[in-house]
Amino acid sequence: MNTKFPRRRRSLVEKFAGPEIDALLVTHPADWYYLTGFTGESGALIVSQRATTLITDGRFVGQAKGETAGVNVSLQKASLLESTGEFLAASRIKSIGFDPTQMSVAQLSTMRKATGRGCRWIPAQGLVAALRMRKDAQELAVMRRAAILAGHVVEHALTLLKTGVREFEIAAEIEYQMRKRGASGAAFETIVAFGERAALPHARPTAKRLKKNELVVLDLGAILAHYCSDITRTIYFGKAPERIRQWYKAVQDAQVAAIAAVKNGVKCGDVDAAARQVLVSHGLDKYFVHSTGHGLGLEVHEDPRIARGQTKHLEPGNVVTIEPGIYIEDVGGIRIEDDVAVHEDRIEVLTRFTRDLIEI
Amino acid sequence: MNTKFPRRRRSLVEKFAGPEIDALLVTHPADWYYLTGFTGESGALIVSQRATTLITDGRFVGQAKGETAGVNVSLQKASLLESTGEFLAASRIKSIGFDPTQMSVAQLSTMRKATGRGCRWIPAQGLVAALRMRKDAQELAVMRRAAILAGHVVEHALTLLKTGVREFEIAAEIEYQMRKRGASGAAFETIVAFGERAALPHARPTAKRLKKNELVVLDLGAILAHYCSDITRTIYFGKAPERIRQWYKAVQDAQVAAIAAVKNGVKCGDVDAAARQVLVSHGLDKYFVHSTGHGLGLEVHEDPRIARGQTKHLEPGNVVTIEPGIYIEDVGGIRIEDDVAVHEDRIEVLTRFTRDLIEI
Repeated sequence: MNTKFPRRRRSLVEKFAGPEIDALLVTHPADWYYLTGFTGESGALIVSQRATTLITDGRFVGQAKGETAGVNVSLQKASLLESTGEFLAASRIKSIGFDPTQMSVAQLSTMRKATGRGCRWIPAQGLVAALRMRKDAQELAVMRRAAILAGHVVEHALTLLKTGVREFEIAAEIEYQMRKRGASGAAFETIVAFGERAALPHARPTAKRLKKNELVVLDLGAILAHYCSDITRTIYFGKAPERIRQWYKAVQDAQVAAIAAVKNGVKCGDVDAAARQVLVSHGLDKYFVHSTGHGLGLEVHEDPRIARGQTKHLEPGNVVTIEPGIYIEDVGGIRIEDDVAVHEDRIEVLTRFTRDLIEI
Repeated sequence: MNTKFPRRRRSLVEKFAGPEIDALLVTHPADWYYLTGFTGESGALIVSQRATTLITDGRFVGQAKGETAGVNVSLQKASLLESTGEFLAASRIKSIGFDPTQMSVAQLSTMRKATGRGCRWIPAQGLVAALRMRKDAQELAVMRRAAILAGHVVEHALTLLKTGVREFEIAAEIEYQMRKRGASGAAFETIVAFGERAALPHARPTAKRLKKNELVVLDLGAILAHYCSDITRTIYFGKAPERIRQWYKAVQDAQVAAIAAVKNGVKCGDVDAAARQVLVSHGLDKYFVHSTGHGLGLEVHEDPRIARGQTKHLEPGNVVTIEPGIYIEDVGGIRIEDDVAVHEDRIEVLTRFTRDLIEI
């Protein structure tokens, strides 16, 4: 039997249980998967010192029973929120913790009505997120495979770059190749941007055809055994002119500097600053319009954030992307992204595809 | 120039503007796309009688300017929520409407702090959703194409059903075929379930291989020009035994009865009851563990809901799925789903693939 889920629930209970909070309500799918293994799309998980209860509807009850162990699976009789409120009231839970970032104003209001005045609602933000941030060896092993898979797909995509091919054709092939290699799907909508469209950091693939002497940005990630990878490479379709080479070199140097700054105990904001500083020295920082990276795991964007002013310190088990980029209107964009795991005394770049400029 | 976005904003303003609410804050991506055409992933839209302002970050400013017209695009200087709060305070907006189903408890609390006491926050639920529910002719034309595309992909998938093929291989090929036919992607994670796994209404594709004499459930949808389709077909891989034929016939009759009940002015709950009643008459209603359908449009699940007790009346422009199903543990499941548009004096089944039992 898989013992990791009960162990995680025990760690969670240790964090919140006390005079303030009797039980914690978990409403975010990635959080409840992390705590129970349940992969359904609708539910509410209530974790207390005494028991773990999952309330869900008829579509997911059978699945929930099969996927979880040590969890009381309860079929909702009314709406999810009403049933959850009724369960809390019937269980005589006097104070329920909830994550205010994961519950809408309307949901809280409906549940408050259902529990009545006997139950206090206590905001308790990011408790599961904090556990999820510290990946264990098993999780890291899966994420390593997901990152390597993403690199293989980049490699395959390079063989498809021909004059006249459309952005969405490459995107379709990329997502197909992920699945063929065992991914359950893409971690996010694959970005394929040619030429001037590469100046949009989050371009959606269009019918645009590839022309000679254009930049190509590929940003893709796979979900493998529930965990995400995320890689970006920028290719020049032709022989890159000197100006592009210089820009590429600046972004590459910024990325290498930020990766070098990643370390157990270092502040996330300092990693961001390391990338930004290199671009300042090239006079390109005004084109770096986003943050340097983000946490990666069951979700493609999670804690910690590698951004300006972030005071959180990196810890062993954190996995973050490092992805500086520059975006120059009407010209194009360059971004290079890798996934980096923090260990006790070293770091590990999970993605393994070369970050040198490739000209095709 | 595309006039539909300003027209939609005017319809929205007519709904809320008055002594109670000065401006409406729109935080849901499908809602802001509907009102402006902006496809970015982060932003806050403020609509008032005088102006429309979109606040977003450096990744999306260029894209927002290119995609919208008549919208003031503003670069956020602090976090999105703080910048939005500061904008509201600076604009002297005294009362701001927000959708409590689309804003988290934490978001509301952060923005309340940023606007200060000069601004009242008024819950105003579902105003954009109500507009989105009534598709115009242009939207229906796109949805028709998305539905036909989904049927073509089902047809293609049937050619791949061979002994030994894995669920995830079929799913990969289905999503690839959607994109090859012009979809920007899948509207949701494609469901491919063989044999006993078909008893899970929302099965994720696994490595399970197809065997002779198994049921096959395919549930897929494409996003075409931003609009979703959603179709389910159940196939028998072999010659179906009499019991399966009877069950299939019962589900098919239930689906046909529910489609026949769809009509301008009819209560959504009555459409659900029409499907349920047929299954009751076959003694199968206890295996029908979900509701009959849901609205479809920019999102794959939107209003109106076709479920027990829903009192909303169908109107011209509504597009809903009709998808009864039965799920029998350790045996399998059968679901048949089509997309139906409501017109003034008739209905239109947008999906065009046969709903008769197919044996392969």
